[in-house]
Amino acid sequence: MSTQTERGGETVRAKTVPARPEPARSVPGKPVPPTAVTVLPVWGLPELLPGDDLAALLLDALRTQGVLPQTSDVLVVAQKAVSKVEGSRVALSAVRPSRQSLAWAAQWDKDARQVELVLREARRIVRMERGLIIAETRHGFVCANAGLDLSNTGTDSEVAILLPEDPDRSAALLREAILSATGAALGVIVSDSFGRPWRTGLTQVALGVAGLPPLLDHREQQDADGRPLLATEIALADELACAADLVCGKTARVPAALIRGVALPPAPLGNAGTGQALLREAAMDLFR
Amino acid sequence: MSTQTERGGETVRAKTVPARPEPARSVPGKPVPPTAVTVLPVWGLPELLPGDDLAALLLDALRTQGVLPQTSDVLVVAQKAVSKVEGSRVALSAVRPSRQSLAWAAQWDKDARQVELVLREARRIVRMERGLIIAETRHGFVCANAGLDLSNTGTDSEVAILLPEDPDRSAALLREAILSATGAALGVIVSDSFGRPWRTGLTQVALGVAGLPPLLDHREQQDADGRPLLATEIALADELACAADLVCGKTARVPAALIRGVALPPAPLGNAGTGQALLREAAMDLFR
Repeated sequence: MSTQTERGGETVRAKTVPARPEPARSVPGKPVPPTAVTVLPVWGLPELLPGDDLAALLLDALRTQGVLPQTSDVLVVAQKAVSKVEGSRVALSAVRPSRQSLAWAAQWDKDARQVELVLREARRIVRMERGLIIAETRHGFVCANAGLDLSNTGTDSEVAILLPEDPDRSAALLREAILSATGAALGVIVSDSFGRPWRTGLTQVALGVAGLPPLLDHREQQDADGRPLLATEIALADELACAADLVCGKTARVPAALIRGVALPPAPLGNAGTGQALLREAAMDLFR
Repeated sequence: MSTQTERGGETVRAKTVPARPEPARSVPGKPVPPTAVTVLPVWGLPELLPGDDLAALLLDALRTQGVLPQTSDVLVVAQKAVSKVEGSRVALSAVRPSRQSLAWAAQWDKDARQVELVLREARRIVRMERGLIIAETRHGFVCANAGLDLSNTGTDSEVAILLPEDPDRSAALLREAILSATGAALGVIVSDSFGRPWRTGLTQVALGVAGLPPLLDHREQQDADGRPLLATEIALADELACAADLVCGKTARVPAALIRGVALPPAPLGNAGTGQALLREAAMDLFR
């Protein structure tokens, strides 16, 4: 497969990442050897500001690294980068805490304005204990502090970063901008780090998804012994977000990763695939 | 970095995966560009049987693929492969269901022998509803059916595969065998796919860990703006397990993946790092 392409009369060569190999020809009964997956950090972006063209900045960074996005690549972008350019931020000085927020904040030794913001972002409190609020956000995500983020917010320490208003729309817009600029119909994931019950540490989850299936459904398939696989749905988009985190250090300015070589099912049309599909219906959930 | 090594007088060359690049020299104030991560499927193993030398089979497969394990690589091995060679399996014909298991099985239209096995593997039932049992296993993992697996069990459909008796020990033994055979002090993870509250689909989790830190603790560090990061512990081993799943298809015989290029903290001594560290203490858990 060629790693050259024509863009504006210029010949650009991808230096860092090998082009995705041509899929081997499938022989019935003989499985195709799986290919390696590469997770490439996207770095060197400036501090992001409201109104910035994130797709252009990501493409610039990739170009500097000598990488050309390709169809079947998956670009995972940190929620915080998306929220910053979309202006999903609130100055704490503009927040007037309610009487309830003031009372809880006093009880937990917290900033009442932060408590107020969490309650505003929540459509339902799932658990509240020892000052920790697990809430369901307006979007339906269940996470600590309704997704409110106070780290890496820029130079102004009095600003809280909120989740994007509609992460699926954010992913779709990024995907369309990259498709339009490069011709590459890649998948895009907007990701964030969430805690989880029963296990320590944070892992990445896909808040918004465009251009790839968020879930891989193996229920119709058979296992290697020909036995039908039951209820085996893999949260592909969440696993891709976790893989991206291996190169997106918390302390470095690496807001995105390009993942190459994932065996995606036949491409869904356009922006098909949503992060909402990764949310369990409350009625089917034993833990809220 | 050389990709050649001497093994038994033979010179072997790694063809498929680039050697991990030498880390760039760190300049104070100038962050080192992050490197790409490669996830390589390990395939071509025979059907695994009790007593098989899994480390030798994995090394054979890697050698056939032209890959030499290196220190700082992380090998992620599916729990099912480990359980198979360790003989963690039970013939359903040997299971005598209790009266309780018979009653529940009848109520849920299930196999009473399977219900009996789940109850035997569980040290505590966390939730039980609509025939679904979420249980805490003997090891402390909280998962559906106490980790019991009925797919991909080989040609005998009447066999259930249990979790390894001690996944941390399994990981440590694999690590030591590979270190002894190749000189590569890599990290090893024994992984399985678990469901989770609030979100659909399964993701991989690390049951056993050896030779790498299961959690990355950023609490002592500062974010890119110099602000202290609070309570940011990343479940590194779980994210590595998820990355491995991108090449370990459910239906192909790919029981392991070799991950190269992850920026690990200074290597812990020997087998340090356990999967148990990824389990939240029940007293600190709001959801059991």
